[in-house]
Amino acid sequence: MELLHTLCRIPAPSGHEAPLTEFVLRYVAEQAPSWRVQPTVLAGGEFQDCIILVFGKPRTAVFAHLDSIGFTVRYGKQLVRIGGPDVETGYRLVGRDEQGEIDCTLTVDEKTGALGYEFSREIERGTELTFRCDFRETDESVQSCYLDNRLGVWAALRLCETLEHGIVAFSCWEEHGGGSVAYLADYIYKKYGVRQALVCDITWVTEGVHAGQGCVISLRDSLIPRRSYVERIRQIARASGIPHQLEVEGSGGSDAKELQHGAQPWDWCFVGAPEDNVHTPDEIVHKADIDSMLRLYQVLMREL
Amino acid sequence: MELLHTLCRIPAPSGHEAPLTEFVLRYVAEQAPSWRVQPTVLAGGEFQDCIILVFGKPRTAVFAHLDSIGFTVRYGKQLVRIGGPDVETGYRLVGRDEQGEIDCTLTVDEKTGALGYEFSREIERGTELTFRCDFRETDESVQSCYLDNRLGVWAALRLCETLEHGIVAFSCWEEHGGGSVAYLADYIYKKYGVRQALVCDITWVTEGVHAGQGCVISLRDSLIPRRSYVERIRQIARASGIPHQLEVEGSGGSDAKELQHGAQPWDWCFVGAPEDNVHTPDEIVHKADIDSMLRLYQVLMREL
Amino acid sequence: MELLHTLCRIPAPSGHEAPLTEFVLRYVAEQAPSWRVQPTVLAGGEFQDCIILVFGKPRTAVFAHLDSIGFTVRYGKQLVRIGGPDVETGYRLVGRDEQGEIDCTLTVDEKTGALGYEFSREIERGTELTFRCDFRETDESVQSCYLDNRLGVWAALRLCETLEHGIVAFSCWEEHGGGSVAYLADYIYKKYGVRQALVCDITWVTEGVHAGQGCVISLRDSLIPRRSYVERIRQIARASGIPHQLEVEGSGGSDAKELQHGAQPWDWCFVGAPEDNVHTPDEIVHKADIDSMLRLYQVLMREL
Repeated sequence: MELLHTLCRIPAPSGHEAPLTEFVLRYVAEQAPSWRVQPTVLAGGEFQDCIILVFGKPRTAVFAHLDSIGFTVRYGKQLVRIGGPDVETGYRLVGRDEQGEIDCTLTVDEKTGALGYEFSREIERGTELTFRCDFRETDESVQSCYLDNRLGVWAALRLCETLEHGIVAFSCWEEHGGGSVAYLADYIYKKYGVRQALVCDITWVTEGVHAGQGCVISLRDSLIPRRSYVERIRQIARASGIPHQLEVEGSGGSDAKELQHGAQPWDWCFVGAPEDNVHTPDEIVHKADIDSMLRLYQVLMREL
Repeated sequence: MELLHTLCRIPAPSGHEAPLTEFVLRYVAEQAPSWRVQPTVLAGGEFQDCIILVFGKPRTAVFAHLDSIGFTVRYGKQLVRIGGPDVETGYRLVGRDEQGEIDCTLTVDEKTGALGYEFSREIERGTELTFRCDFRETDESVQSCYLDNRLGVWAALRLCETLEHGIVAFSCWEEHGGGSVAYLADYIYKKYGVRQALVCDITWVTEGVHAGQGCVISLRDSLIPRRSYVERIRQIARASGIPHQLEVEGSGGSDAKELQHGAQPWDWCFVGAPEDNVHTPDEIVHKADIDSMLRLYQVLMREL
Repeated sequence: MELLHTLCRIPAPSGHEAPLTEFVLRYVAEQAPSWRVQPTVLAGGEFQDCIILVFGKPRTAVFAHLDSIGFTVRYGKQLVRIGGPDVETGYRLVGRDEQGEIDCTLTVDEKTGALGYEFSREIERGTELTFRCDFRETDESVQSCYLDNRLGVWAALRLCETLEHGIVAFSCWEEHGGGSVAYLADYIYKKYGVRQALVCDITWVTEGVHAGQGCVISLRDSLIPRRSYVERIRQIARASGIPHQLEVEGSGGSDAKELQHGAQPWDWCFVGAPEDNVHTPDEIVHKADIDSMLRLYQVLMREL
């Protein structure tokens, strides 16, 4: 879990993913020699802050978003949301502007809901703030801000160790309306003919999805994937014997939005561990679900 | 109207259009030999559950969506909407899960609006339910669930009988945010250079649009088509002498959303009969409007 | 400011930009001989009512939208919005239908908010109405309807006079959900390899953005541009010594939405003067901000 801890600590709010991109590129350069197959690495330039890793002859692509929720400093002591963070007076926020490091606390006006910060000085306009990382690990769980989606990134990187054929794509802006999967999906489809996707992200513990009962296969959220593709995934999962749960939601979204609405005929399915305390500094995931998530990805990438 | 009745009975909620796709493909295979021109049939694989029929040298494409609204079984006895169905306690819903056929009734919690079902057993998570088809025909009207858009599919198939030049495309996911017209439009534009579209779908009876007064040409809904294209269509319609009505709305959408927002310069216009009791099991359309819809499509596809 | 006055007077609500397109094409044909570089002019056919001007070897594209907000006549004396115009009983609206010129007044029902008009006769269904232009100029400011975005069009046309390398694109439908930048961006990226954009549009005077303090560089609105690109723009602006202001908003959008969500890796930034009385017949902009907007565009197009 040391890799996960490192990933959770690197700030990468939507639009400013570059520091995490650089870390992942360094990690890949260092680790790839020990992987079963050496991937082609596509990054920089026309890929902006995204990364595509291509292994063997790919049939399926995994999408894991790098970015996180956060806040932008507006005027005076006001904050504006990046994505949909949970807000509570007292949350510790960190960042950096030209005057130096920032470690401040979030304030939420009780009447208006207006967001602000308390700090010893005024922070420069446009500065991004993210939750301060307090990483906690027990025998049973990990807890931190940004498990959504550093855990998805972690699972994707661990998947790389044994992957023979497939694509692993790291995307940007997922938490704030998207903006990179459209071109990643276009590139992958046109260059490799791949149009099967797995969305490697973290979902919610709900009345129907319980911590510790396995990785979630989502039958739908605000969008509905093509039934025939989801059925194939369910069959592979059942046959594998790996613990998993089925999710049915009417709201929520993921990188799949861009796959669904793009000009290529992607089939997609969301597969990921569930977390509690969603979009707070205290996101928590059961280790059994992390384990089944990684194993499920390994099987699916072999058999799809 | 036997064909229409058959189309209305086949369940095809957004994301699970395959049964209707198969029916249409069989119908085309059987009927095409008697059509004036034999179309090229594009289906399967990269077209997912969509179908494209290409006749002669096409200048204009007709888009008719296959899918319908419905419900997905969530947890316990909860339901989640597929698209925007009208809901009323007592509506009969049908479906199928691994335990067999389902014929249940919709429940709507009076206080919370929460959706559920009453049935002799629990239905499996993720099962789709659709309105039970009660098809009613008089001298003047047809009434059934899913006239939106089985009537559009019907008109498109009848149009095929005499079509010499043009494309008829059957799309998916229209009722639930779209997801196929983006790639159909891209394929058609790049392969055939076609960028004129008619959206073959059903609209609403309102204070300005009356049952029995002819097929509707929509000047706008939530989106605004290019004025010059709509004016050409109005002129052809006027010259044809076929009864028609003009619609102006501020809300509502169709497959045109994906044409408008895609990366190709499509001109589009919604042309279709109006219905009452929209998105209920009792959608009703005047036969005179069905007649003028088909005739208008025949003229427009000749003259545009 | 005579050119600006002329631009403000030509009606071009979203979907019916053609009259303004024709004016701009005539203007370009007349003026281009005196420009430093002769552009390639792309218009008509597959560009619908948009225009692309290509100068030299372009690295960056400027997007300025031609269309404005307005109203469509519905049924009876009802109106439906085009985009998001401010509404107040008494605003003068102009247009034209088959019965002739229209000069009427807007009515807003106090209880329901329903929009209508008062006029000596009924106006034909589907007719577009726009604010009547009352152009006012002082030493310090210009005031008129539709400075958003005729001032952006004006700045783009003035920029053409000295532009050596770059693309100036005039887009449609911006005020009503977009629909042209998707294909313009695709064409420009594929044909010229350009993926740096400046959105040449008008923003708002707010508590953090003041009239007369210079052109605005927007760090974000409802969308968040890539940080590294915006930082480059800020550095060029700082080095230039041209007065400018930084904006941070949580809402509002522009042609950038289509750049962000398209299937090409565009970097974009909104750069434009701020106005007060947004989307009313009385939009007002400080002349110092117009001056710094044009100068900033000249520098950015040289140095980006």
